[in-house]
Amino acid sequence: MNTNQLLQQVAFIKEIDKLKYIQRRTKLFNSDRHENDAEHSWHLAMMTLVLAEHADKPIDVLKVVKMVLIHDLVEIDAGDTFIYDTAKNHTNTDEERLAAQRIFGILPEAQAQEFIAIWEEFEEGLTDDAKFAKTMDRFEPLLQNTSNNGGTWVEFNVDYQKVYDKKKAIQHGSTAIWAYAEQLLNESVEKGILKKENPEEKK
Amino acid sequence: MNTNQLLQQVAFIKEIDKLKYIQRRTKLFNSDRHENDAEHSWHLAMMTLVLAEHADKPIDVLKVVKMVLIHDLVEIDAGDTFIYDTAKNHTNTDEERLAAQRIFGILPEAQAQEFIAIWEEFEEGLTDDAKFAKTMDRFEPLLQNTSNNGGTWVEFNVDYQKVYDKKKAIQHGSTAIWAYAEQLLNESVEKGILKKENPEEKK
Repeated sequence: MNTNQLLQQVAFIKEIDKLKYIQRRTKLFNSDRHENDAEHSWHLAMMTLVLAEHADKPIDVLKVVKMVLIHDLVEIDAGDTFIYDTAKNHTNTDEERLAAQRIFGILPEAQAQEFIAIWEEFEEGLTDDAKFAKTMDRFEPLLQNTSNNGGTWVEFNVDYQKVYDKKKAIQHGSTAIWAYAEQLLNESVEKGILKKENPEEKK
Repeated sequence: MNTNQLLQQVAFIKEIDKLKYIQRRTKLFNSDRHENDAEHSWHLAMMTLVLAEHADKPIDVLKVVKMVLIHDLVEIDAGDTFIYDTAKNHTNTDEERLAAQRIFGILPEAQAQEFIAIWEEFEEGLTDDAKFAKTMDRFEPLLQNTSNNGGTWVEFNVDYQKVYDKKKAIQHGSTAIWAYAEQLLNESVEKGILKKENPEEKK
């Protein structure tokens, strides 16, 4: 056994505990408590196991599970960016790249490179695995907001079109889940928990 | 697409959110906040990905990740049992079996059966995959307690022999991790955060 290797891995395992302190804007189902990134990552991994059959293209389930388990680790250094924040773009900031280098860099070299590559694949969102991982990442808060009387949509006054534009990434991983998601969005408009501007009124 | 199947899966995804409310006795690394079961499950899945190479026997990483992600779901109904609780045996209570039937039973039949079988395999702890999953489950709180000045060992006055008896299950999955764990236990005794009764003093 390579003792040094194990010690590096244990140092990483301790470091990533900090993910449990990163608060998201979204709240737990039927609760006023904010969700943290570790809980969110666990939930996406469970969703991947349960919903994999709805992927449009064949996916490597273990790869997708790895992606969703690690996708937010960079937020330990870079913090959570709210998806509807207009001032800051969520993806691929220099800050996040540096964070990936530092955090995964605690691991033995080969393992660090493997995780960084998986994280970059997720961020780029081009492969079938990354597309399905992003489907999970967009679908969970949609379920939370529809269960929480609008959740962050109401709290931050986000309108239908903005939500739709972010959520439509769901369709790149799964037509079936997107069909259901669109139905939830329409129901949310009907219930008044998601506001749709009427173009007629603008005239 | 089978819409009914997706609706059952979404119902399950909502139900398991409750895992985030189940508090464990152990606390986060370097913190006074208790860890919840969802955070714990995420951490074990990460540990499995990182430490798999130290398994004594070949393991199916995806299977082990599934085990650790779902292993505590029964606690949504049955609650968390403290590992050093002498009045209540942790494993395979009737309450937990009923919980598994109810919670996994929300899923489509074939999926429910698959998850129940994986959960039972973990609980029985006889296969190489289950042994390694249990290695992860025993190793995480050991790392937490050694990082937290003794954590639950000090708080609940648990002595070395009791801890050793529970932790030795680590060796069934990984000789390498057990060698390191024994070293941590010995260091904890030296630091005075884990009490070892001296047999000489008993005379």
